Amino acid sequence: MLKPEIIHRLQEIVGKDDVLSAREDLATYSYDGTTNWTGTPEVVVLPRTTEQISEIMKLATRHHIAVTPRGAGTNISGGSVPTRGGIVLCTVKMNRVLDINKTNLTAMVEPGVVLQDFNNMLAKENLFYPPDPQSFLGCTMGGTIAENSGGPLCVKYGVTKHYVLGLEVVLPSGYVMKVGGSTVKNRTGYDLVPLFTGSEGTLGVITRITLRLIPRPAARRTLMAIFDDMTLAGAVVSSILGAGIVPAKIEFVDNFVIRRIEEKMKIGLPVDAKTMLLIDVDGSEAAVESEAERILELLKEGGARIARRAKDETEAALYWKARSAGFAAIYSAARTVIAEDVTVPRDRLSEYIQRLDEISRKSGFPIVLIGHAGDGNIHPSVSTDSTDKEDLERLEDTLTAIFEMALELGGTLSGEHGIGLEKKRLLSRALDPMAIDAMRKIKAIFDPDNIMNPDKIWENA
Amino acid sequence: MLKPEIIHRLQEIVGKDDVLSAREDLATYSYDGTTNWTGTPEVVVLPRTTEQISEIMKLATRHHIAVTPRGAGTNISGGSVPTRGGIVLCTVKMNRVLDINKTNLTAMVEPGVVLQDFNNMLAKENLFYPPDPQSFLGCTMGGTIAENSGGPLCVKYGVTKHYVLGLEVVLPSGYVMKVGGSTVKNRTGYDLVPLFTGSEGTLGVITRITLRLIPRPAARRTLMAIFDDMTLAGAVVSSILGAGIVPAKIEFVDNFVIRRIEEKMKIGLPVDAKTMLLIDVDGSEAAVESEAERILELLKEGGARIARRAKDETEAALYWKARSAGFAAIYSAARTVIAEDVTVPRDRLSEYIQRLDEISRKSGFPIVLIGHAGDGNIHPSVSTDSTDKEDLERLEDTLTAIFEMALELGGTLSGEHGIGLEKKRLLSRALDPMAIDAMRKIKAIFDPDNIMNPDKIWENA
Repeated sequence: MLKPEIIHRLQEIVGKDDVLSAREDLATYSYDGTTNWTGTPEVVVLPRTTEQISEIMKLATRHHIAVTPRGAGTNISGGSVPTRGGIVLCTVKMNRVLDINKTNLTAMVEPGVVLQDFNNMLAKENLFYPPDPQSFLGCTMGGTIAENSGGPLCVKYGVTKHYVLGLEVVLPSGYVMKVGGSTVKNRTGYDLVPLFTGSEGTLGVITRITLRLIPRPAARRTLMAIFDDMTLAGAVVSSILGAGIVPAKIEFVDNFVIRRIEEKMKIGLPVDAKTMLLIDVDGSEAAVESEAERILELLKEGGARIARRAKDETEAALYWKARSAGFAAIYSAARTVIAEDVTVPRDRLSEYIQRLDEISRKSGFPIVLIGHAGDGNIHPSVSTDSTDKEDLERLEDTLTAIFEMALELGGTLSGEHGIGLEKKRLLSRALDPMAIDAMRKIKAIFDPDNIMNPDKIWENA
Repeated sequence: MLKPEIIHRLQEIVGKDDVLSAREDLATYSYDGTTNWTGTPEVVVLPRTTEQISEIMKLATRHHIAVTPRGAGTNISGGSVPTRGGIVLCTVKMNRVLDINKTNLTAMVEPGVVLQDFNNMLAKENLFYPPDPQSFLGCTMGGTIAENSGGPLCVKYGVTKHYVLGLEVVLPSGYVMKVGGSTVKNRTGYDLVPLFTGSEGTLGVITRITLRLIPRPAARRTLMAIFDDMTLAGAVVSSILGAGIVPAKIEFVDNFVIRRIEEKMKIGLPVDAKTMLLIDVDGSEAAVESEAERILELLKEGGARIARRAKDETEAALYWKARSAGFAAIYSAARTVIAEDVTVPRDRLSEYIQRLDEISRKSGFPIVLIGHAGDGNIHPSVSTDSTDKEDLERLEDTLTAIFEMALELGGTLSGEHGIGLEKKRLLSRALDPMAIDAMRKIKAIFDPDNIMNPDKIWENA
């Protein structure tokens, strides 16, 4: 346990009410969105200003206390689990949107702003911030930067790093460093903004974020297609993109998810179907009309049993609600669910789906497919029972097999969830050893005492 | 001079014909696109493979010889000037396009591919790579990555770093390192790709590049507007973007350029006008029609004397040729022309233009305005005579004044040209000192002996 004078000093910095140390409070901050990683902090602080965070970091450095920064803790890589106890530094009370500028197409926010709240504010100004991790209802902006979040919209709009212009970060020393700026064009030395974007809280605490926005697309169409063959569905994704159309979203769910959705929502999906694709196109009214028509043709040519456009916003919303419900259904179907996050080049999707099926049959683990087909980022969700030790060992081998297969197809270990605790055992097989060495040295530049979110990303971190 | 055995070893590595050491050859590689920086190399090598580059770097490290990597040398920051003699490593003979993939929307190229050649190949596949530095006819892909190049299209499409998925780089040690991959979603440790993108050849030699592409926009419209007041033109840029329209390009030229264009091309521009704006919109046929109409309205409401759409591709091409001719005209108008590259937030454009006018009047230096209004990146081109020493000192003060003004307006030191030699004296005033310190330490990770393009970016580098 931390010494009473440390707790006392934290109370001085942020005020008594914003320092939590009761057992039930600490338990609340002991887990993230994964089902298999936990760690209990010794204290939780909820600062409201950059200055307070600077003082907390100085204290932590002086006493060599591990600090785990977090927002809503919705990540699914173990990234915000305080493995070494220490201080959980939770930024949810820094939740001001400081600026929205329509001419510059920029915004400045604090890290604790909830993504959905931000999007609602932008919508009133006819503006749009595309990255849309599926935790959007609760996740905070600081977390989305630290994890370089993706989401369904990234097929058209790119990921979080494509939208971060500038950051204020508090380094472990307490120094408040500014990197980047507020213009898209900025060529002053090495670009440190993308280094902190996706750094999973291991380099510093993000305290202020300047973002690039785009105008809100004027129109949207949603299409739904049903396939009797998963690999056909994978191939049709390739044919849409090959035809020069980049939909805003191309989402994929498998038979398991279709059945769960139908059980819960009764929207008339054929429960014997192997795949449902949900596709959004957005842009000007005229553009979405012609794109939707062309995609319908391609879906039919590609062998869809059913291919139709949502007749109105209500039907479109119903489909997207079903997609969300599907994800929830996966998590409730087993005690332990690992949402894998490998990503493959899009032209390898059919092969990827086939080989996942083989891995599932061989291992005996059910593998459910749901995710972002347009990015080659369909999450294979492997379900098992975490209380069974033997099962867990076999599970690890199965996850390794999935990863190795993705790498063989030219893919990557993680598309959007990050490494955290979940994938660090595999990192050295995914990256050039010299690149890992460089990353560790970069970590040491900013965090020489290794107090910023230790144990994450690398083995022996 | 380098010892004969070094030259001999270089000849062994790349072959005799690809090692240049004649005086006239060395002179050819002694300058870049600036008018005021030069440095003569001791030898020039033109490798054809990554393996050759690895051998060259090992040799350079062993003998502690400075290496200046370059492509076509079109940069305008002194970035590829070999200030310490040593080896110029020119990648123009590595000019293969290795892969273009329509489904994945990716390409893989060698560093010596000329940007325009690449674009021509992509056009045949109906694909598009947006970054368009105005040296596109000659500049090579490796250089555009090393400089993180911008251009007119960046207002809508972002800059080079938004398109780089993966890199192969040869480090000073000779180690061939792979960073990133071939998918847009890739969350494996710190993102080293944007570190090398924009590193100005100071970290390693880029030998292979994987790029993200987009489908080629189906249609395009060009609009031209003439203003009697520069600040009105600046304000109208804000009103277009504020209306939710992001044109592909918004280019600005001033009265000096209008007169030069009219002298050379006689296309009927009013020579008394203060500003011409050239605007491109692209996208689907229907989208560009409605956007062009709306922009025409906004131009007229914003006080344009003339506002019209190019009636066909021929007229559009004429306007864009005039824009290019304008830039050439600036360079031919004086012995020394410094194309400043400060960038300001778009909503400060009017103020920026007004204050540049004040600086010009106070200093007596003509300042011509030409550039990317949509990015707040209008290059103020200051002309003088580099043979007059007193003039050059006053020029330095004037450039500093421009930079300080841009910073006051929330802008940045360089929007797209980079630091190189040109702006390194100002870097410490533009960035957080701790960020500069971190950059230098990152440099030392990859290049501990400081042989990779030394003297660039920082003072005492």
